[in-house]
Amino acid sequence: MKEEILELIEKQRFNDLREYLEKINSADFPSLFEEIEEEKILIIYRILSKEKAAKVFAELEPDVQEKLINYFTDKELKNVLDELFFDDTVDLIEEMPANVVKRILRNVDVKDRKIINELLAYPDDSAGTIMTTEFIDLKENMTVEDAFEKIRKIGLEKETVYTCYVLTIDRKVIGVIDVKQLLIANKEEKIKNIMNTNVKTISTLTDKEDVAKMFDKYNFIAMPVVDMENRLVGIITIDDAIDVLQEEAEEDFEKMAAVTPSDESYFKTTVFKHAKNRIVWLIFLMLASILTGNVISMYENAFSALPILVAFVPLLMGTGGNCGAQTSTLVIRGFSQDEIKLKDFLKVWWKEVRVAILVGTTLALINAIRIFIQYDIGQTKLAVVVGLTLIIVAMLAKSLGCILPMLAKKLKLDPAIMASPLITTIVDTCSVLVYFNLAVLILGV
Amino acid sequence: MKEEILELIEKQRFNDLREYLEKINSADFPSLFEEIEEEKILIIYRILSKEKAAKVFAELEPDVQEKLINYFTDKELKNVLDELFFDDTVDLIEEMPANVVKRILRNVDVKDRKIINELLAYPDDSAGTIMTTEFIDLKENMTVEDAFEKIRKIGLEKETVYTCYVLTIDRKVIGVIDVKQLLIANKEEKIKNIMNTNVKTISTLTDKEDVAKMFDKYNFIAMPVVDMENRLVGIITIDDAIDVLQEEAEEDFEKMAAVTPSDESYFKTTVFKHAKNRIVWLIFLMLASILTGNVISMYENAFSALPILVAFVPLLMGTGGNCGAQTSTLVIRGFSQDEIKLKDFLKVWWKEVRVAILVGTTLALINAIRIFIQYDIGQTKLAVVVGLTLIIVAMLAKSLGCILPMLAKKLKLDPAIMASPLITTIVDTCSVLVYFNLAVLILGV
Repeated sequence: MKEEILELIEKQRFNDLREYLEKINSADFPSLFEEIEEEKILIIYRILSKEKAAKVFAELEPDVQEKLINYFTDKELKNVLDELFFDDTVDLIEEMPANVVKRILRNVDVKDRKIINELLAYPDDSAGTIMTTEFIDLKENMTVEDAFEKIRKIGLEKETVYTCYVLTIDRKVIGVIDVKQLLIANKEEKIKNIMNTNVKTISTLTDKEDVAKMFDKYNFIAMPVVDMENRLVGIITIDDAIDVLQEEAEEDFEKMAAVTPSDESYFKTTVFKHAKNRIVWLIFLMLASILTGNVISMYENAFSALPILVAFVPLLMGTGGNCGAQTSTLVIRGFSQDEIKLKDFLKVWWKEVRVAILVGTTLALINAIRIFIQYDIGQTKLAVVVGLTLIIVAMLAKSLGCILPMLAKKLKLDPAIMASPLITTIVDTCSVLVYFNLAVLILGV
Repeated sequence: MKEEILELIEKQRFNDLREYLEKINSADFPSLFEEIEEEKILIIYRILSKEKAAKVFAELEPDVQEKLINYFTDKELKNVLDELFFDDTVDLIEEMPANVVKRILRNVDVKDRKIINELLAYPDDSAGTIMTTEFIDLKENMTVEDAFEKIRKIGLEKETVYTCYVLTIDRKVIGVIDVKQLLIANKEEKIKNIMNTNVKTISTLTDKEDVAKMFDKYNFIAMPVVDMENRLVGIITIDDAIDVLQEEAEEDFEKMAAVTPSDESYFKTTVFKHAKNRIVWLIFLMLASILTGNVISMYENAFSALPILVAFVPLLMGTGGNCGAQTSTLVIRGFSQDEIKLKDFLKVWWKEVRVAILVGTTLALINAIRIFIQYDIGQTKLAVVVGLTLIIVAMLAKSLGCILPMLAKKLKLDPAIMASPLITTIVDTCSVLVYFNLAVLILGV
């Protein structure tokens, strides 16, 4: 691809170039632009048709968009903005620095600017921020023929034409109809007779994560967004819903690894920003782990008398952490999949306790065998101490692994912050406590 | 919802019940069925229209589907199977026990059975397993009018009618056209003049995860699946692509928490199965952590002489583990988002090293302050030992956090297995080694 393009530019065969570029999917341009130098990018971009140019622009990374805008004449910028869907324009404005935003707003039509400002006003993460105000609206007394007329007239500028919404005069949603249904219906048929009156709507203030889940559940291509008076103000299309699903999963991955989530890509984030995203949790967890250390110090006499005791601390801490991580991850994901609910608390906990007994006992036995192999057979008591600790720690870790995320949920916090790193640290302290107490008790050190 | 339905059943107002049920979205039935007893479920199900019944059936959990099938007469079963899309039938067959599968295959038409067997033959996780063989195919010499004729005739049974594929006589894909384009085109226009000839196709053997990524990238509603001879054999629709994206993310979450991934839901998985999914990693990691213990034992003299040394082991192990978890998670997700590639190795590693130096030093300073507060000022050397260890461990952990997943990728293994649990265990050993060596060196114990 790249080669052909560069060659066509070389030979100044711009008509062939344009033809060639029009065939390339707009989603393939970002990776293409990464590989070629800026002035060539500009040449390519300026050769594209108005529509294609806008499609391509919407796909680009913010930093590339900014570069292009700075090259653009006001006329070029206006062309792009006219073609962009409102939700893409809003995304753009949210990413650009103030001076660029000023230029953008100066170059959109007055009526568009009004809509854009409304969209910008919605709270973060609300449905309003990902919706587009472009949709096909029909009236219930239209015939199928009229409907097709309208779609043909304004269809192409709309992000999706396949789901049409039937509105009253005061723009309340009373029905929804798919083009599929229109296609098989009789041309003279009235819309009101074939529309589906049971419409699932989204409020502008609904959390976009819940919106994404509805798309996942109902397999819609688009969903209508209504204001407080149930008036249709926009639609959300499935491609935006997918992006939200992806973002939310990434955020959970980062939170669960004790990283402060950020939208920027790994490489676009500076070393300093990376450090900033990670240091907070590291400090907190480090300070927390001091407690474990102090507990160990309390048993100085024990391990001074029997130094081998210390050798099992990593094993116990590690196992406890892993048991907790397994449970907390399953519970946290269970929440975000709406599979586990708060009312299931006892069900989950009881399940985890039984799992803990199974795995704890297995680990204890394996470890006992290993102790007999590594040290002489006289270590029965030691094997008992470590084994018992393993079982208790497994139960403790798995209990905390389900209790803490549930607690966070109850307190309206994000359960993901209760993931392995935090639980590991808490479990560490407990395991050391249990371990040395059993040691003192059974080994009498 | 539940109350109304139960009441209508109570009063045997079955016509009203049917009307009421038809209005409910099929995706809402699974949760409804969970709340009411079986014979009522059967009553409700049998009242549904043929089409609705099939839609609802496709949404149900395998265990409910199995129960229903066991209640079904062969005629009822046949009705459902006739209405189901092929990809749903295949999903069903893959979930059901052998005896039910026999009954299913006995009740599908001969020609359908042939198709189903073909679909079942595709390798796991391949595009073939999630595609449906129902699509709209056009010929290039058809007019737009003809195209609409065809869509009207066969449209409703097709899972999506909005993307049509233009085939040669030997079923090779030469073009794709959206209903949107057909709607605005002139009725007499020939398809070949308006179709898009640059078609992105998927091979039946493509990994379904790659398929899902293409949907995410190109925002298609449907994509064509072709065999080795580039003949169209089916299409994949966006709803199936979303499910794959979700599944893959969940699998990563489980792998990264040292849990063997499983498709079953948390509650549907037995305690024993849960234990089985978790024990393998727990045993492996426990055995690995023995090494750390043995290393500690090697320095028995050191901590017998200066017991306070032991108090810092949890802090160092914990911090190392957390640093490693942060990096490995970012790298693993970077891979699955195609944002980080193998060739970026040095770029990533160099970035992580600098981040490590920043966070390591910060942690070292904070910890030094804390040592001076907790113990008397004489502990400068101790603060130096712990501080240096923290910095080195941070660098080690973040290096391993990017090297190991990269290595796994290079070896064509799943990078997700190189997540925090494994890295933590490896880092533990290193940190203890570094720590006690520095202690011996600087504190001369």
